[in-house]
Amino acid sequence: MIGIIMGSKSDLPVMQEAADMLDELGVKYEITIVSAHRTPERMYEYAKGAHKRGIKAIIAGAGGAAHLPGMVASLTPLPVIGVPVKSRNSIDGWDSVLSILQMPGGVPVATVALDGAKNAGILAAQIVGSADQVILQNLIDYKEGLKNKVLKSAEELENR
Amino acid sequence: MIGIIMGSKSDLPVMQEAADMLDELGVKYEITIVSAHRTPERMYEYAKGAHKRGIKAIIAGAGGAAHLPGMVASLTPLPVIGVPVKSRNSIDGWDSVLSILQMPGGVPVATVALDGAKNAGILAAQIVGSADQVILQNLIDYKEGLKNKVLKSAEELENR
Amino acid sequence: MIGIIMGSKSDLPVMQEAADMLDELGVKYEITIVSAHRTPERMYEYAKGAHKRGIKAIIAGAGGAAHLPGMVASLTPLPVIGVPVKSRNSIDGWDSVLSILQMPGGVPVATVALDGAKNAGILAAQIVGSADQVILQNLIDYKEGLKNKVLKSAEELENR
Amino acid sequence: MIGIIMGSKSDLPVMQEAADMLDELGVKYEITIVSAHRTPERMYEYAKGAHKRGIKAIIAGAGGAAHLPGMVASLTPLPVIGVPVKSRNSIDGWDSVLSILQMPGGVPVATVALDGAKNAGILAAQIVGSADQVILQNLIDYKEGLKNKVLKSAEELENR
Amino acid sequence: MIGIIMGSKSDLPVMQEAADMLDELGVKYEITIVSAHRTPERMYEYAKGAHKRGIKAIIAGAGGAAHLPGMVASLTPLPVIGVPVKSRNSIDGWDSVLSILQMPGGVPVATVALDGAKNAGILAAQIVGSADQVILQNLIDYKEGLKNKVLKSAEELENR
Amino acid sequence: MIGIIMGSKSDLPVMQEAADMLDELGVKYEITIVSAHRTPERMYEYAKGAHKRGIKAIIAGAGGAAHLPGMVASLTPLPVIGVPVKSRNSIDGWDSVLSILQMPGGVPVATVALDGAKNAGILAAQIVGSADQVILQNLIDYKEGLKNKVLKSAEELENR
Amino acid sequence: MIGIIMGSKSDLPVMQEAADMLDELGVKYEITIVSAHRTPERMYEYAKGAHKRGIKAIIAGAGGAAHLPGMVASLTPLPVIGVPVKSRNSIDGWDSVLSILQMPGGVPVATVALDGAKNAGILAAQIVGSADQVILQNLIDYKEGLKNKVLKSAEELENR
Amino acid sequence: MIGIIMGSKSDLPVMQEAADMLDELGVKYEITIVSAHRTPERMYEYAKGAHKRGIKAIIAGAGGAAHLPGMVASLTPLPVIGVPVKSRNSIDGWDSVLSILQMPGGVPVATVALDGAKNAGILAAQIVGSADQVILQNLIDYKEGLKNKVLKSAEELENR
Repeated sequence: MIGIIMGSKSDLPVMQEAADMLDELGVKYEITIVSAHRTPERMYEYAKGAHKRGIKAIIAGAGGAAHLPGMVASLTPLPVIGVPVKSRNSIDGWDSVLSILQMPGGVPVATVALDGAKNAGILAAQIVGSADQVILQNLIDYKEGLKNKVLKSAEELENR
Repeated sequence: MIGIIMGSKSDLPVMQEAADMLDELGVKYEITIVSAHRTPERMYEYAKGAHKRGIKAIIAGAGGAAHLPGMVASLTPLPVIGVPVKSRNSIDGWDSVLSILQMPGGVPVATVALDGAKNAGILAAQIVGSADQVILQNLIDYKEGLKNKVLKSAEELENR
Repeated sequence: MIGIIMGSKSDLPVMQEAADMLDELGVKYEITIVSAHRTPERMYEYAKGAHKRGIKAIIAGAGGAAHLPGMVASLTPLPVIGVPVKSRNSIDGWDSVLSILQMPGGVPVATVALDGAKNAGILAAQIVGSADQVILQNLIDYKEGLKNKVLKSAEELENR
Repeated sequence: MIGIIMGSKSDLPVMQEAADMLDELGVKYEITIVSAHRTPERMYEYAKGAHKRGIKAIIAGAGGAAHLPGMVASLTPLPVIGVPVKSRNSIDGWDSVLSILQMPGGVPVATVALDGAKNAGILAAQIVGSADQVILQNLIDYKEGLKNKVLKSAEELENR
Repeated sequence: MIGIIMGSKSDLPVMQEAADMLDELGVKYEITIVSAHRTPERMYEYAKGAHKRGIKAIIAGAGGAAHLPGMVASLTPLPVIGVPVKSRNSIDGWDSVLSILQMPGGVPVATVALDGAKNAGILAAQIVGSADQVILQNLIDYKEGLKNKVLKSAEELENR
Repeated sequence: MIGIIMGSKSDLPVMQEAADMLDELGVKYEITIVSAHRTPERMYEYAKGAHKRGIKAIIAGAGGAAHLPGMVASLTPLPVIGVPVKSRNSIDGWDSVLSILQMPGGVPVATVALDGAKNAGILAAQIVGSADQVILQNLIDYKEGLKNKVLKSAEELENR
Repeated sequence: MIGIIMGSKSDLPVMQEAADMLDELGVKYEITIVSAHRTPERMYEYAKGAHKRGIKAIIAGAGGAAHLPGMVASLTPLPVIGVPVKSRNSIDGWDSVLSILQMPGGVPVATVALDGAKNAGILAAQIVGSADQVILQNLIDYKEGLKNKVLKSAEELENR
Repeated sequence: MIGIIMGSKSDLPVMQEAADMLDELGVKYEITIVSAHRTPERMYEYAKGAHKRGIKAIIAGAGGAAHLPGMVASLTPLPVIGVPVKSRNSIDGWDSVLSILQMPGGVPVATVALDGAKNAGILAAQIVGSADQVILQNLIDYKEGLKNKVLKSAEELENR
């Protein structure tokens, strides 16, 4: 089970891609809103209890001065995947990226690209897959699908 | 009473300037270390209780993905002054600045310049001074002192 | 009483949010236009007289090479809150942010996020609230409201 | 078993911290040099074979136009942790960070902070720990140790 | 013969300009899609075989963490021209530029401006032209054409 | 007569180069310290009176949130040349550059390169020289000298 | 007489503002297109001859890797005002700004804000005005007009 | 024959690496100083005559507002390789990179990494090698050497 959280309802269009990818790769997840700055107590409870409830990894998305992924990482022994969201008030996304990526020694956040929730979903599946042969095979098949799409595009371009 | 906190002992050489300035301006303070990422529970307790203990404003300094000022601001109704510290692993200070400054609507942090702890001290005194004529006068005198130092430098340069 | 000033009429859509927030939090304010570069004398008079007229803090918004907050701060012993505005000719807001934030030692500006006038309003209320229990309680209630909105969003997402 | 690779011998002082952290957390690893640009075939073989040899995650560090983590990620179904190294010719580390972080949809790299090899080690242990109670407990104990160090520093500062 | 490759079909509107310019300058080319991250084996084969098939230079365009130009350069002795593409998820193009430009010593990529595929076409023609007088003359004529367009614009502006 | 001013004594090592260049080009100048933030009244007087005292252009250098050149420009009808100084607390000079360069419409500052006081001196001489044939000739001779130094270096390199 | 030049017809909408401002301030000018990269010989002739034809200052606008202002400055003893234009292919204007501003010692360009052609016109008038009392008075009147517009806006806002 | 030029003697320590690499790869070259800003006429002559003297490609290195590579490219039909030099007054090299890389359509510069003169040498050899089997073989051997150095480092690390 993967936990997907985001700082605000406005992050949902980006974060939904993580959920869709987990669906595609056959990994279970739960999804909700947890704001570091508006519901700090809720964040504590969510993060402290996650590994006890059987969560294997947490995907956390936020924008601007994005503290959710790092604060959750400070409260759980689980791997936390951070998705920098290019929110409305972000300075071109740089604030989101740097405030998630540049965590101090001892408290990592596995950061993906700006608005890269799809890749966060894949990474969560890879974490599960490192101890689950079925998911690992799904990932191998997914990669094969990516390759085939490119080969088809290439063929179309060469034959246009 | 002002609360001065910092994320790590390594921030002390920068943050000491805030304390020194408060001393100079006649404002009382306490100073300690509170790490958002390494002691999240301690941070909660500190921030939740501050206004009940008579603290009037909190100065919080941190570097890199600096979450301390913003998280404290999420937990207290007091004004929080954030000092971005150019720590060893910071990317030229940009991460420290952006992860303190770019707070979402509803949870402000009064951010000062990179390594600007001295100014954080003055700002804290100004907050106290907005309701305390003695401190306000100290600030007026301090400004007068700044002016006189420049005038003296100018005179020296003109007469060299 | 809080003073809200801005460098140009074009800053009003952003700066109005500071006024609205002060209304919501029960803090009085006045609002006008003062340009550092086009009306420097007016700026001097405004800033020099503010604390004598009972103003407790000044919110100043400007864009590009934004000198208004810093210059006002140089002329008043009051706390000055700077709002970097992403104006039409700004380079993605970086100029506004840096020319407000990076004040020299001795003259702080309490800087908020790019276009963060709403947070400037809250911060001004916090300054008043640090010596006024009614405003402090309004701030506590406001924070409670923020939390409840997130909890409602979370519930909707979980039950969709 | 974790695989640690780096693009050049000059990355070793940074990357050794990943190995040391894995030692501390009780996770086995192998370590070697694999250059995307100078030994592309070797990289292919390494990445294609890793999951078959029982590797559970790969930590890859590189600087400048750092292609090693992303290319390895394109060749393996395993989670790949990327460490941007601030190498001698890097432009303040921005090139290392962006060429590792900004992977296209379908091929994630779990990026840590600039020179953040220590955190890469912890993240690799968290991946193992998500399916291994002993390692999970080691991580919980490690976090406890971080907390205690901060508490001790805080006590020293308060009592100086 | 010049080889034009790109990481994704979505790069075609930019990369077509390279092909058009080669047409205009009388240089033959082939064009297809080769993704470093989705079809790494295909990339290997393309790059390893290019100089044996009579290709004289390779133009490679990609966006985000753009590894195609650099990886192709690692696999071929031919000159590789890299076109940073400002793709949808790029951070204003900085990631594309830096991950193509900042190649380590030993493996150059001849980088052109962001979205500068037209110039990549000219550069490829210049490489051919350095050993082919007909193409060199075409380049001289092309430059003459550029000049004449400017002179005509100048005349129109002066006489408006 | 050119007026050279700077925000702080610490700017003198940089700003002295402007004075030296004016000496070399035969242009008179005065030099002093005027701080926008610490001596705002002094700045007003200086800037308001300059053109009445026969000053022809003002060179103003400052670092960080550098408001001196822009504020002086707001107060004088004379051309103002701004020198961004990379002071100790500047963020790599970006703050100095942007807060001098990005002036709003109506109030220009003629900005030179970071720490480019030497060029500010030349520019001031060019302003004087646009109405003074002797200074114009000095500038032509100075350019000739630059050329000859390069030619000598070239000869040495070719014959080493 | 002021010379206004630009690198491309596409710069005209920006550069026209310089001409309009000179009209408003009563300063004569000529305007044309001179491309550093497409008509280098034309640029040489223009720049070498300008001061002999009675030109007092040159305003040069260009975008991207903008070499026109700096190259003209290398060829003339006159003051050159550079206008960085945010052209279509510019990286958010940073390339235009830096390639105009960061001139080496000996060859200054008086740089104005991104797309700041209006200010370039004022600066050119100030250069003329430093030796022409009529133009100087026009500049003083223009500043008065700016002030009055702000005062009117302020009144409207205060009385809304 | 390759032409190596640089804007200033101070660029020689960087640019010498291009010469050394050409020596290693068996490609002839000439080397001298040509300043775009201090010796513009010399630059014209150099660039206009190069292809007539049998030069096959030009390597041009410069720092700050680096106009040499682009201006040479505007004057010659030959491929021009630009080396951004991180000179003393450069803003962390960004100015050098952008003013060389971001050339307008029609006038390409083949840009290499900051201070990447070694790669400029290799690229020049690749241009020659695209029509010269001996040089092509030298490049293949050089790549083999790079690989072997990495393999040896890898072995040492594995066996330490």
